[in-house]
Amino acid sequence: MAILVVGSVAFDSLETPSGKRERVLGGAATHFALAASFFTDVRVVGVVGEDFLPEHEAVLTVKGIDTKGIERAPGKSFHWTGSYLTDLNAADTLATDLNVFAEFEPKIPEGYEGSDYLFLANIDPVLQARVRGQMPGVKAVAGDTMNYWIAAHRENLLKVLKELDVLLINDGEARMLSGESNGLRAAEAVMALGPKSLIVKHGEYGATAYFSERSFGDGVKRRPFRTPTMPLGEVVDPTGAGDSFAGGFYGYVASQGKLTPEVFRTAMFYGSVMGSFAVEQFGTERLQATTRAEIDERFGHLREISHL
Amino acid sequence: MAILVVGSVAFDSLETPSGKRERVLGGAATHFALAASFFTDVRVVGVVGEDFLPEHEAVLTVKGIDTKGIERAPGKSFHWTGSYLTDLNAADTLATDLNVFAEFEPKIPEGYEGSDYLFLANIDPVLQARVRGQMPGVKAVAGDTMNYWIAAHRENLLKVLKELDVLLINDGEARMLSGESNGLRAAEAVMALGPKSLIVKHGEYGATAYFSERSFGDGVKRRPFRTPTMPLGEVVDPTGAGDSFAGGFYGYVASQGKLTPEVFRTAMFYGSVMGSFAVEQFGTERLQATTRAEIDERFGHLREISHL
Repeated sequence: MAILVVGSVAFDSLETPSGKRERVLGGAATHFALAASFFTDVRVVGVVGEDFLPEHEAVLTVKGIDTKGIERAPGKSFHWTGSYLTDLNAADTLATDLNVFAEFEPKIPEGYEGSDYLFLANIDPVLQARVRGQMPGVKAVAGDTMNYWIAAHRENLLKVLKELDVLLINDGEARMLSGESNGLRAAEAVMALGPKSLIVKHGEYGATAYFSERSFGDGVKRRPFRTPTMPLGEVVDPTGAGDSFAGGFYGYVASQGKLTPEVFRTAMFYGSVMGSFAVEQFGTERLQATTRAEIDERFGHLREISHL
Repeated sequence: MAILVVGSVAFDSLETPSGKRERVLGGAATHFALAASFFTDVRVVGVVGEDFLPEHEAVLTVKGIDTKGIERAPGKSFHWTGSYLTDLNAADTLATDLNVFAEFEPKIPEGYEGSDYLFLANIDPVLQARVRGQMPGVKAVAGDTMNYWIAAHRENLLKVLKELDVLLINDGEARMLSGESNGLRAAEAVMALGPKSLIVKHGEYGATAYFSERSFGDGVKRRPFRTPTMPLGEVVDPTGAGDSFAGGFYGYVASQGKLTPEVFRTAMFYGSVMGSFAVEQFGTERLQATTRAEIDERFGHLREISHL
């Protein structure tokens, strides 16, 4: 079943211990869509400027991703400049040029309302809520956010959280959103704000899913579930790892057309697999080159390194 | 088969977000021995002062731990004062009073040389090497160390590393010992220094085992193995978590009498289980109260939260 993702399509200028790249294709919706495209049909709603060329669009369309919802606006695309020289686990943002993204007003193209799965990537929660309102018939809604919205737009974010089947955030965001330093207590507090289930990403240490009584519609509260990551000899560029995790996770869920505990756990592993590919090269390079056979092979490795 | 552990038997004064305790029983050998005692016979070599009373010894002997190797010396026992108020994952050492431990010269009591498994807890590598030399017939040697020995006693430590079947350290120690920031490359560099296998502990995120061609005597190099931790709603006192992990791990290995890949993986899970109990109360309280039934139950939970 098809996923509609709304979020940033952008250019990133990056510096990591492995090297430097200028204006490579990036953005949360881009990484998410590429990762999810291995599992299901994906439609992207976003906005780009005149610097978004046919060669950039082809990165998406060659994977069968529907780009009809990517609006062209006069001016430049969103451009993020970041460095991982101090810490591979935490980017230093050097510049955020919103450009055309500053006036982004998501429009759902005709035919997109029928998408069964909606992913609200990390954008202004007011826009997330607006998109969610335009998609009354979706089977499930998942989403992401970040420290900026948690700190400065909390009221708007809280409205979105009530709409989510699954929220995906990292450890720091979970602590910030809940005010709790303990992981389990933070997760319970976040789910009390609305999300039926919560995935907390631990960077190089994997991710934990937390469930509420509302997670699977049967009133049963299940134990958390943990997925490891693949040990990698070189993390070239961590940008987009979380979005790629989300794309692998949600892409697999959509491909199954139902959210059972078993589907959720398997989807977590696919999320980890896609995140592990994403960081092996700069920008979208590795996801562009990935094959389904490689994904299945790495899924097997991830099982092997974590199962008795 | 029996394990001989050499290391500190001490008193700890602790402050954590959950409260404060003065002079509770602690020390690496204590935590290790208690955790391992659920799986196999354990013999302790260490030194204590006149403040080590029959009630303290009973904590060990009630679990069947052989305390004949705990020497009594005039003066006070090793006393560590630490605080976790800033960060539950990293203790601030407020005071280290070595006391009788300063002159510790391990003596292997008669009959102990026949122990099949040796664990060298975190002490001066010169002493670790001396004990190892007195136990020529052991089947396997595992050990721990810390930043202090890595930084200031590197040459002595390197001699011990060559003797180890399994080294257990944490992320920071692996980086420090190898000079590598990447986990996988750090592990390879550490194993190149001698240990056949390496377990790197990630605190609340579990642990990863790394293997070399020498790990299982068959020349086959296997993929790493990752164990998660139990999500806990409250970490009361992290002191001894790593030693309890080591005790659960090595205790299970010794109980099986052989180190196969399957035994190693299961032992990692038991290590994680014992570490998760250790932190639930102050000092040794929780390990003292733990039952084998609880251990097996939590082992099942750990499998459930990590297996597809």
